Amino acid sequence: MTTRLPEREYDARLAAVRDRLARTPADAAVWFDATSIAYLTGFHHVQTERPVILAVTEERAEITVPRLEVERVDGNPRIDAVHRYFDYPGGMPIPTAVSMLRDLDVESVAADADGAPGTMGYRGADLSTYLDVTRQDWVWRMRWAKSEAEVALIRESARWANLGHRYLADYAEPGAHPATVSQRAATDASRAMLDALGDRYVERVRGTGPVRAGFVSARETALPHGHTPNRRLREGDVIITGASANVDGYRSELERTMFVGEPTDEQVHYFELMLEAQTIAIEALGPGVPVADVDQAVWDYFREQGVTDLARHHVGHNIGMDGHEPPYLDRGWGEAQADPGNRLIEPGHVYTIEPGLYTGTEGYRHSDTVAITEDGTERITYFPRELEGNVIRYG
Amino acid sequence: MTTRLPEREYDARLAAVRDRLARTPADAAVWFDATSIAYLTGFHHVQTERPVILAVTEERAEITVPRLEVERVDGNPRIDAVHRYFDYPGGMPIPTAVSMLRDLDVESVAADADGAPGTMGYRGADLSTYLDVTRQDWVWRMRWAKSEAEVALIRESARWANLGHRYLADYAEPGAHPATVSQRAATDASRAMLDALGDRYVERVRGTGPVRAGFVSARETALPHGHTPNRRLREGDVIITGASANVDGYRSELERTMFVGEPTDEQVHYFELMLEAQTIAIEALGPGVPVADVDQAVWDYFREQGVTDLARHHVGHNIGMDGHEPPYLDRGWGEAQADPGNRLIEPGHVYTIEPGLYTGTEGYRHSDTVAITEDGTERITYFPRELEGNVIRYG
Repeated sequence: MTTRLPEREYDARLAAVRDRLARTPADAAVWFDATSIAYLTGFHHVQTERPVILAVTEERAEITVPRLEVERVDGNPRIDAVHRYFDYPGGMPIPTAVSMLRDLDVESVAADADGAPGTMGYRGADLSTYLDVTRQDWVWRMRWAKSEAEVALIRESARWANLGHRYLADYAEPGAHPATVSQRAATDASRAMLDALGDRYVERVRGTGPVRAGFVSARETALPHGHTPNRRLREGDVIITGASANVDGYRSELERTMFVGEPTDEQVHYFELMLEAQTIAIEALGPGVPVADVDQAVWDYFREQGVTDLARHHVGHNIGMDGHEPPYLDRGWGEAQADPGNRLIEPGHVYTIEPGLYTGTEGYRHSDTVAITEDGTERITYFPRELEGNVIRYG
Repeated sequence: MTTRLPEREYDARLAAVRDRLARTPADAAVWFDATSIAYLTGFHHVQTERPVILAVTEERAEITVPRLEVERVDGNPRIDAVHRYFDYPGGMPIPTAVSMLRDLDVESVAADADGAPGTMGYRGADLSTYLDVTRQDWVWRMRWAKSEAEVALIRESARWANLGHRYLADYAEPGAHPATVSQRAATDASRAMLDALGDRYVERVRGTGPVRAGFVSARETALPHGHTPNRRLREGDVIITGASANVDGYRSELERTMFVGEPTDEQVHYFELMLEAQTIAIEALGPGVPVADVDQAVWDYFREQGVTDLARHHVGHNIGMDGHEPPYLDRGWGEAQADPGNRLIEPGHVYTIEPGLYTGTEGYRHSDTVAITEDGTERITYFPRELEGNVIRYG
C-alpha cells in the first residue's frame, strides 16, 4: 500500500534538476511555484500573497519563506538552509531571496518565472531587477511522466474516489438535495479513508476531509463547468458526478453520467454516443502515440455521427499533483509544440479520458483516469462505465 | 436581504474602467484574471489552462472564451460580443483574442498582464508579441473598497458562517474525528442556507455546499496554515476553527481558538494575550488610519508583553471575492507603496483581524471580519470572542 511518496523520489528529482543546471549557463535554478517546490522538496505550502523562493545550486538547496512557514520546512532533509522574512510586504520577500542568492555567490539564475505569481493580490519586484534571469520549465516538463510510486498514489486515490462515488449513487434519490448528497458522500468516504489508512494517511487538507465527491444535476449538466443547483433531485434527472481523493498531494479523477430512475430513449442515445467516444479514446491511448491523435479519433467519430456541434471541449488532460496538467489531449497539441519531443504520449503519463456531449439542456460525460505503461495502458478508476451501472434505482 | 449583487454595480464598475481608459493612451483595457472579469461583468468562470480574455473599449465590451464557457456568457447584458476558440491549445486562444481586438481597431491595450496566467500548466504567447501592451492594475485597486451592496453580501456570508461555526462547536467532543465534525458542520449549515435562501441563493459552487466550516486541532494549531490531523479529539485539545460562506462570490472569515473541555492556566494566559491583541487591532481600525498602524499597534503590544518571538504573521488582510486581498494589515505596508494614496484605510475596506500567537506546540488565533464605515467600523462576524464562549463543554 503506497500512501506516501518515498523519500528517494525527491532525491532523484533534485538530482535531475541539478543535471539540467550543470548544462545551463546559470549559477542556480529558482522556483516560485508552490507545486514545483513541493515536487522537488516535499515541502507543501498554500500559495498565497506571501512568496516562497527555492534556490538550487550544484551543492546547496536553500529556501526563503514567510515566518509562518518556518516550522513546516525546518528539518526538511533536502533543504540546507531556511531564510525567513516576517511577512508580506514589510518583510521584503524578494530582497530576502536576493540576499540568499548573493550569499550563495549566485549572479545568474534559471527561474520558473521572473517573480512570484500574482496570487491573492501579490505585487512585487521582478527578480531581474537584481539578477540575470533566464526562464526554465524543467519541473513543468518533468511532471508529465509519473514514476511507479506516483502512479501508485494515484491508484490509491482512485480507491477512495470509488467509495465516495458509490456513496453518491447510494444517497441520490428523488427529493434528496444535491449539495447534501454530495457532502454526505464526501464525509463518509473521507472518514472511511482516514480510519482505514490510520498512521499511513499523509495530512494534506485543511478543515475538511481528503475525499471529494459531488455532482451537478439537471440543467446545470448542460454546462461542462456547471454549478450545483439549489433544486432537489427529481425522477428523470441526469447527474454528472465527480470524485477524487488527495493521497500525499496526488489525485485521480472519476466522473459519471447517471440517471435518477429510468432514462428516456433520447438520454440512452446520447449516453451511448458518449460512452463509445470514451472507449475510442481509451483504445487510442498508448506509449508513442501522438498526443493529438486521441482527441482527433474522438472528433472523427463525432463528425461521423453528426454531433460535433454538441462537443464543448477536448478529450482530457494529464493529472497528478494538479487537477489539470499538460499534455492536454487536444487535436491541436502537436502543432502547438515547438519541441517535437513534447508531442508523443509517454509511459508514466496519466490521463483523464472525458469526451463530452451537451445537448443544450443536458450533458453527458464520463471521466476515467488511465495510466500509460511501457507497453499499453492501465485503467486506474474502475466504477462501472456502462449504462446499467449508472441508472440509480431507489426505494 | 441581499444575496445577489445588483446589476447596477456591474454597470458602475464598467463605467469606472472606461473613465480610466479615457485618460490612458490605449485603445482598450484587457483582463485575463478570472476574478477581475467576474467583477466587471458578472460572468464567473473557473480559471484553468484555458484563457479567457475580456476587452473593454469606449463603446464595446467583448470577450474571448473557450467553447465550454459560451453558454454561461452568452446573453450577459454587459458583453456585446462573445468570441470563441474550441479548446487549448489547438484553438489558439491568444490569436483569437488578438483577432477580436484588431476587429475593434485596437492597436494598443492597457492589460492586467502580458498574457494569461500559468494556471494548471498553461503556456502561451505574450500579448505584446502582437500588440502594444502597457500594464494596468485598475480592478486590483478598485476592489479594495467595497460598495454597500458588497458589504451586505459579506454580512450575509457571516450569518451562515456563524451557523456553521455553531455546529462545529456543537459536534466537537472527545472521540470525535476533526474531519467528520468539520464536514458535518459544513453539510448541515450549507443545507440550512440553501433551504433558507431558496430562489435567492446564487449558485457559485460545484459538487459541494456554499458553507465551509472546519478546524485544525492539537499540534497542527502550532502552524498558522496547519492541516486537519487524523487523530480524534481529546480533552484538553486546542482547536482553531474557520468558517465562511459563498454569497454570490463574496465571503467573510470567522476563526476561533476553542478548547475541548477546561483550558489550563497556560492556555488561558495565551488566549487572553491573543484576545487583547485582537481588541487592540479592532480599536486601531478606522477610516483615514494608516494601514500599517494597525499591525504596528499589535506589534507594540507583543513587544511590551515579551512575546514577539511567538508571532508568525501580520494582523490580517482585506477580504471580498478572494480569501486574501490587499491591503494587508502589515506594519511595512506604507513603505511598500510608491503611491501615497494607497497607504490609508478607507471606508469600504473589509478586514480580517487575526493576530496570532504560537507557542511551538499550540496556536492561538481568532479572526473576525470588520468593515470600515464613513466614521468608524462595523464588526461583521459575531460569534462570541471571549473565553467563556469558546470552551466546549460536552456530555
